[in-house]
Amino acid sequence: MDLNEKVLKQAKAAKAASYGLMKATTKEKNSALALIAGGLDAGRKTIIRQNSKDIEEGEKKGLKKAFLDRLTLNDKYIDGMISSLKDVIALPDPVGEITSQWVRPNKMKVIKMRMPLGVIGIIYESRPNVTVEASSLTLKSGNSVILRGGSDAFFSNMCLGKIIRDAVKRSGLPDGTVEIIDTTDRKAIAAMLKLKEQIDVIIPRGGKGLVDFVAENSMIPVIYHDAGICHTYVDKDADLDMAVKVALNAKTQRPSTCNAMETLLVHKDIAGKFLPGMEEELKKAKVDIKADSKAKKFIKSAKDASEKDFRTEYNDLILNIKVVDSIDGAIAHINNYGSHHSDAIITKNAPAAKKFTAEVDSAAVFVNASTRLHDGFEFGLGAEMGISNQKLHVRGPMGLKELTSEKYIIKGSGQIRG
Amino acid sequence: MDLNEKVLKQAKAAKAASYGLMKATTKEKNSALALIAGGLDAGRKTIIRQNSKDIEEGEKKGLKKAFLDRLTLNDKYIDGMISSLKDVIALPDPVGEITSQWVRPNKMKVIKMRMPLGVIGIIYESRPNVTVEASSLTLKSGNSVILRGGSDAFFSNMCLGKIIRDAVKRSGLPDGTVEIIDTTDRKAIAAMLKLKEQIDVIIPRGGKGLVDFVAENSMIPVIYHDAGICHTYVDKDADLDMAVKVALNAKTQRPSTCNAMETLLVHKDIAGKFLPGMEEELKKAKVDIKADSKAKKFIKSAKDASEKDFRTEYNDLILNIKVVDSIDGAIAHINNYGSHHSDAIITKNAPAAKKFTAEVDSAAVFVNASTRLHDGFEFGLGAEMGISNQKLHVRGPMGLKELTSEKYIIKGSGQIRG
Repeated sequence: MDLNEKVLKQAKAAKAASYGLMKATTKEKNSALALIAGGLDAGRKTIIRQNSKDIEEGEKKGLKKAFLDRLTLNDKYIDGMISSLKDVIALPDPVGEITSQWVRPNKMKVIKMRMPLGVIGIIYESRPNVTVEASSLTLKSGNSVILRGGSDAFFSNMCLGKIIRDAVKRSGLPDGTVEIIDTTDRKAIAAMLKLKEQIDVIIPRGGKGLVDFVAENSMIPVIYHDAGICHTYVDKDADLDMAVKVALNAKTQRPSTCNAMETLLVHKDIAGKFLPGMEEELKKAKVDIKADSKAKKFIKSAKDASEKDFRTEYNDLILNIKVVDSIDGAIAHINNYGSHHSDAIITKNAPAAKKFTAEVDSAAVFVNASTRLHDGFEFGLGAEMGISNQKLHVRGPMGLKELTSEKYIIKGSGQIRG
Repeated sequence: MDLNEKVLKQAKAAKAASYGLMKATTKEKNSALALIAGGLDAGRKTIIRQNSKDIEEGEKKGLKKAFLDRLTLNDKYIDGMISSLKDVIALPDPVGEITSQWVRPNKMKVIKMRMPLGVIGIIYESRPNVTVEASSLTLKSGNSVILRGGSDAFFSNMCLGKIIRDAVKRSGLPDGTVEIIDTTDRKAIAAMLKLKEQIDVIIPRGGKGLVDFVAENSMIPVIYHDAGICHTYVDKDADLDMAVKVALNAKTQRPSTCNAMETLLVHKDIAGKFLPGMEEELKKAKVDIKADSKAKKFIKSAKDASEKDFRTEYNDLILNIKVVDSIDGAIAHINNYGSHHSDAIITKNAPAAKKFTAEVDSAAVFVNASTRLHDGFEFGLGAEMGISNQKLHVRGPMGLKELTSEKYIIKGSGQIRG
């Protein structure tokens, strides 16, 4: 069977399964998740053995040590996957929820009910735990899934995929509930992206290369998780101690994440008072500073920030600092240079906070809090599949509810259109 | 300026305008809509003159008379456009609505607020009233719009577009609020579909050729309004008089629409009792019947229905009829052959109705009512931009609320991530 046929066959299996999953009870779905957790626990040795093949391959390919460290699975890591499954079991099932209903003058009752999206295709480059997390969230939300992981975690993903599929089989849920693409051939992605009849949504999780490839080739609706170019704006009416604390957290608590700050904007009136202290803390945290000409006056150690720097997601201990003349200047900079992801204002001034939150066009806008808090768990949604920074369907964390949409159910008594 | 540059310039104007529109008040938006209505009223003669150019061109091109009739604008039609603007003025403004809010254990307040999508690109082949309706709905929902109408209504669209843009200018809203692509060159569509940074959503409204072109070329999220292959299933426990009345309405009340029925499914137990009476009514309404072998036993006049017929959107007085063995057979047929648009069951049996509405995977599922009722006005949402049969973002009518999404606003007091 050629690759296109094989992918089509898997997509058809996933589509068929989606109709079974749509009507599966919460109890049935939770037992499947428990069986997956059991499978991971029982399969620890195999998982670690298969994962070590990826590490060996990675060493041969000359991948960086830090990257390989993140790829390495151990008992603690497997504990984490099992515990994330238990979290998903505990979350409420969104399927079947009546979100609103009303009666029309002709006595027809209009009901909106939450339903799974159907078949979700996930293309990821990240760590193998995505195989487990994505399967569990799609399953709990009644969706079947087609997973296509990256080549660096190929053996780990295949092993985890087998454990998940075996558990699904034992649970009695349809066989196509979780489909695993078992090749690293990029043509398999191109094949998936054409299957508009079988796959309802594509979620890419990876770098710009992958995201651009999906954007250019997908005939299926996509939910994008693009770059996170996030800002903190320190207003003239900010509590400056709070500003230092929050900005430092946004930059340094975990700089590799999409909600970490890349650019700090500072109102000109407080730049002289704020920046020296901020510089001191950033230096302690080993952050490299790039600054515009106005900010450089107050930060002796800074390099020059270029136009390109303001459009760069560093994911590292590097920070742009820019002085702005007004809150309008800050908002314009964020809407123009940012990625509509997570942006914060530090201010004690309520009208300024209101203006900033209304006009900054981002998935999450923070007042006096760190952009690092943009997260499904921190927001209280439970587990998430990533953070959407597109505007269609969902902005922000993709939790269980965000993996559903609402259909209309109309209850009549013979109504017709006149 | 070449075409790509020109489209880019318009898209940039629309993007810039979107930030102004995002914060426009309901009053400001409503006055702009009233100015458009006034402009249409004052411009009647020009509109009708420009429209007559399209009709002349259409006659030269040999377009069908029925098509040209639908394209023709007269005073009554312009009255309709003005009245639709007044309807939109009367609708509530969805922007800024707080849809939910809660407080986290760390005292951080999480708020979800409805915001415009940003810039919407609409590519349409339909009648020139879409120019007015699409502008008014996007404007009221705080979105800027880029309109690209079809060549058959070129002069009418340009004239209406100018009236709208003049009114927007007088209203004080940003100039890029409504951008009109003033060429019929298809390359302009290709150019629009690449502008991911400027355009947030694409809505194609037209035939399969246009929809496929958009699917293949868009790098921007799309809301599809695909084919409507809609079904009515007459259950064994149906009120057969109601079934005749509802099915007849679904097929014949306006057969050219996307929510008209294309296939009638009938439970085998009542086929003999139901079909002869149904045939009689369909014959009176001049409907051509195509039937599967089981249905043909009861409908002498029917032609054979082929596999392909069950996948065809006739938009005409033609109907497929098929006898099924069970409700499961009906559901499987609908999910397999349908377009996930509008499907109905006629039954007095509550568990059957429940099963059907839960398992039929369509944007709107009807119990004892005509699929023709799938409509923004009929559902009480007010005006609509069409009916989505994709699952992402929105299923069913695209009204004002559906032209927005929710962003997060987080109010803190110095919260950081630990």
